[in-house]
Amino acid sequence: MTKVLKGIAASDGIARAKAYLLVQPDLSFSKKSITDADAETARLKDAVDASTKELQMIRDTAAKSLGEEEAQVFDAHMMILADPEFVGAVETGIKNDKVNAEQVLHDVSANFVAMFEAMTDNPYMQERAADVRDVTKRIMSHLLGVTLPNPALIHDEVVIIAHDLTPSDTAQLNRKYVKGFVTDLGGRTSHSAIMARSLEIPAIVGSETATTDVAADQMVIVDGLTGDAIIDPSDADVAKYDKAAQDFAEQKAEWEKLKNEQTVTKDGKALITAANIGTPDDVQGATDNGAEAVGLFRSEFLYMNASELPSEDDQFEAYKSALEGMNGKQVVVRTMDIGGDKHLPYLPLPEEMNPFLGYRAIRISLDQQEIFRTQLRALLRASNYGKLAIMFPMIATVKEFKDARAIFDDEKAKLVAAGTSVADDIEVGMMMEIPAAAMIADKLAKYADFFSIGTNDLIQYSMAADRGNEHVSYLYQPYNPSILRLIKQIIDAAHAEGKWAGMCGEAAGDTIMVPVLVGLGLDEYSMSATSILKVRSLMRKLDTTEMKQLADRALADAETNDDVIAMVKAATQQD
Amino acid sequence: MTKVLKGIAASDGIARAKAYLLVQPDLSFSKKSITDADAETARLKDAVDASTKELQMIRDTAAKSLGEEEAQVFDAHMMILADPEFVGAVETGIKNDKVNAEQVLHDVSANFVAMFEAMTDNPYMQERAADVRDVTKRIMSHLLGVTLPNPALIHDEVVIIAHDLTPSDTAQLNRKYVKGFVTDLGGRTSHSAIMARSLEIPAIVGSETATTDVAADQMVIVDGLTGDAIIDPSDADVAKYDKAAQDFAEQKAEWEKLKNEQTVTKDGKALITAANIGTPDDVQGATDNGAEAVGLFRSEFLYMNASELPSEDDQFEAYKSALEGMNGKQVVVRTMDIGGDKHLPYLPLPEEMNPFLGYRAIRISLDQQEIFRTQLRALLRASNYGKLAIMFPMIATVKEFKDARAIFDDEKAKLVAAGTSVADDIEVGMMMEIPAAAMIADKLAKYADFFSIGTNDLIQYSMAADRGNEHVSYLYQPYNPSILRLIKQIIDAAHAEGKWAGMCGEAAGDTIMVPVLVGLGLDEYSMSATSILKVRSLMRKLDTTEMKQLADRALADAETNDDVIAMVKAATQQD
Repeated sequence: MTKVLKGIAASDGIARAKAYLLVQPDLSFSKKSITDADAETARLKDAVDASTKELQMIRDTAAKSLGEEEAQVFDAHMMILADPEFVGAVETGIKNDKVNAEQVLHDVSANFVAMFEAMTDNPYMQERAADVRDVTKRIMSHLLGVTLPNPALIHDEVVIIAHDLTPSDTAQLNRKYVKGFVTDLGGRTSHSAIMARSLEIPAIVGSETATTDVAADQMVIVDGLTGDAIIDPSDADVAKYDKAAQDFAEQKAEWEKLKNEQTVTKDGKALITAANIGTPDDVQGATDNGAEAVGLFRSEFLYMNASELPSEDDQFEAYKSALEGMNGKQVVVRTMDIGGDKHLPYLPLPEEMNPFLGYRAIRISLDQQEIFRTQLRALLRASNYGKLAIMFPMIATVKEFKDARAIFDDEKAKLVAAGTSVADDIEVGMMMEIPAAAMIADKLAKYADFFSIGTNDLIQYSMAADRGNEHVSYLYQPYNPSILRLIKQIIDAAHAEGKWAGMCGEAAGDTIMVPVLVGLGLDEYSMSATSILKVRSLMRKLDTTEMKQLADRALADAETNDDVIAMVKAATQQD
Repeated sequence: MTKVLKGIAASDGIARAKAYLLVQPDLSFSKKSITDADAETARLKDAVDASTKELQMIRDTAAKSLGEEEAQVFDAHMMILADPEFVGAVETGIKNDKVNAEQVLHDVSANFVAMFEAMTDNPYMQERAADVRDVTKRIMSHLLGVTLPNPALIHDEVVIIAHDLTPSDTAQLNRKYVKGFVTDLGGRTSHSAIMARSLEIPAIVGSETATTDVAADQMVIVDGLTGDAIIDPSDADVAKYDKAAQDFAEQKAEWEKLKNEQTVTKDGKALITAANIGTPDDVQGATDNGAEAVGLFRSEFLYMNASELPSEDDQFEAYKSALEGMNGKQVVVRTMDIGGDKHLPYLPLPEEMNPFLGYRAIRISLDQQEIFRTQLRALLRASNYGKLAIMFPMIATVKEFKDARAIFDDEKAKLVAAGTSVADDIEVGMMMEIPAAAMIADKLAKYADFFSIGTNDLIQYSMAADRGNEHVSYLYQPYNPSILRLIKQIIDAAHAEGKWAGMCGEAAGDTIMVPVLVGLGLDEYSMSATSILKVRSLMRKLDTTEMKQLADRALADAETNDDVIAMVKAATQQD
């Protein structure tokens, strides 16, 4: 029987393949006394041997399909299996305590995990705790006779069905075979959704029940345009969606033609469509998708993928590489946005009850100035290799912006005094993501060279609703008139001082939001690279005068998020 | 040598007394092997005996000075000391393991705490975990030869010096002897500050170093008007502050004369000064201080001081009592604001990464409607006994308000249909504490009968800064033009629809804020009862036209919180 599951459309496109359930089996067990320790030890040995064989196979497959680097995590797992201290401790425990292997394995593993986690001065050893957990799960699955999902072994075309996808899950997936995702959890801004868009894999998130509604190997159609998953489709469904997939492919081909075109509205107003990137490697994807700029270069990767604070030279190389890759097009680098949900093993941050309302981003930079100054020097030195702009995250007050800019000016003056060449046209702007800042945008526009609106945080704080919290996810309302009015204030304030306003949140690539933003006069739209051509195509159909009327109506007459969606759809003939 | 310590003025008035250090001693120890278990057991017995004697004395003193109820907590402690299972387990441990009493006591205590805390279906037994911790601390102090502070034993006039004051600390303090507080931590809205104002004890919080700068029995002057603590004052200091204390007493006597006067500005505009209350018992303090209304009755106490959801009848009695106590003056009851930092043992709430941005207040009420409907029925039935208004906390969108009001209308219609009498003039309004709501105040004013601005949360969300987090406390800026502009939007929107706007946050009783609020046209000011007469006195000196000019200037010209403070001080001759 065909069944339709409704979720959140997270990544465009249509896929059809059989389901692969990436679901953790039940690994619970009871403590049991045993009498025959030798038989129990033999059970353990069988489970360890089976785990070793399985890991070897996964490792070989991963090396072939994903590359040597992704495969190395499994070497670490096999080393633990081969470590006589670990397995030996379980054997000794079985003999001495006369309880079942599951219980002893659980206890020994907990001790090892605690030991590794206690090595707070050695991040490398701390990470071994995760390996011990993974290996324990694998041995346990063999002891209990259940099967762990092994995504690295997939060698057929599949649609992945999962509760949620973690970064380590997705690292093991082979793009050649994985045609789509459907997850129970998540929203448009969750990790799995962002990842799906970046891999250009059709995806549905937040389906709530996919893992219970879909059985392994059932045929599934993923419609990433509408958020519908068709389980066990009829022939008519297959035909209908194959046609839709073909239409989508044709549309993409049309978009592709815009790659080297300028972004203009129907009435000829030039706008900028730009890419959000996370590392210099992402520049390739940005230029492949015709980005006219990098509107957000998140500098966190420099800090996250390191075991100590990145040196000025390491940072310099990264910024230089991104600037050179963009070949004279503007690259807006956001200074460190650590804190909140992003922690560094080597930078102790306070335990906070509400980290999103805590010590993060510019608040850390202004407090621990050496980290900030190092980053600014690296940026200033890199400014010779392209068109650099920098912006500060989480600015709430005029004083914070002035303080941050004064530090920038100070480092610039010092470098110049020391004879280092520095570009003279570096724009210094700020993220607009805190409601208080939006309320005094007119004041801030006197000091900042530009604003870049961060919609995810702006919505989260304006609504007082954590965007990662499913219990309040209904309050993530990008089109609510409250949010649109804040955005209008920001854009108008920038323009009144002759500055430009951009957006680097998810909403900048959203086809409901873009018409309103064009109407509000937003200058720059920075998004996932893969959304750029779709948005550029949409903008060519929009008339700025009509969109201004639409935006005015939405701001004056709409009461709710849904009101705005209806108005935009009616005005732009979207469905 | 006289030393001046600067903190945050948290509660008006001037006090002089010797210091009592309410500071926890160092109770750390090392594990040691012992040979003579009998000697170690004797050491333990001595410590237990000394603890028992000490507790008996504290219990007797507490019963006399604080009352039987406050004293009963110490009975629970003595029961644990007398429990052979607890002390017996420590004795057995010393004999079997041959380690020092401190280590065994620590381990046994941890086991008992874990056992009690695991009784999740029995909140009474769960609370015993705290008693075990307290008793363990006391025995440990005797084993280590250090002294625990025993605030219940204070029988001289003192100024309490503490790192912070918890509710259980303050419950043990005798108002007769405690003349003032100085704490290291806290801000104007912390528990200790609110408590000090409610007890009318001069207090300074956030001094950072009081516990290290002040020695036991040193003379300390607490100036709760300026936030200065004078340690070891000179004779000249004493004379100066005695004069200041006398001036303050005279000023209070002046204020006292306004108790039965209406609140009016210099030019005769009538305003409302109201009290915030937490229980029906607080009505007495409100009327004693001349409150013209209760602007905020926090209904949480009904839920917090209970072991299950309060019944409709229990709630009815509480609301009725408050309404009758106010004798026809308006009482604004805020519906349940649970969640965030307020949890109930009997109502499971999700673990959240950012509870202030989570499932709380109206979000719970709309989701778990039976709880909400019970409260609304109790309120509707109580409406016959006075002038009731109700308001919903944490409204972010028009839909939330309309949904909440529809449930209210539904319960009202059902009661009326069933023949229950219900007042016909109940105003139904909302808290204005979420930036998104302030941005669409014009839309909300069509549906709400009034707005009450909650400054603490409004500032917290607008600034994206947890007001309890010391690392970002610099962002608690009530006078920042961003906040003032939001407040203006709210007031103007209410007035445009012929509705009234009030404020029930701390700022409504703040002498810098009040002139601006009068200028912005705020109608109702609800504050700690003890601030009412001071504010009423201030308002009599303010001209609304001048204050409007001041507010306009602050909104147009000020860039920072400090700019506004300077403007207000200049315009109102405050220093």
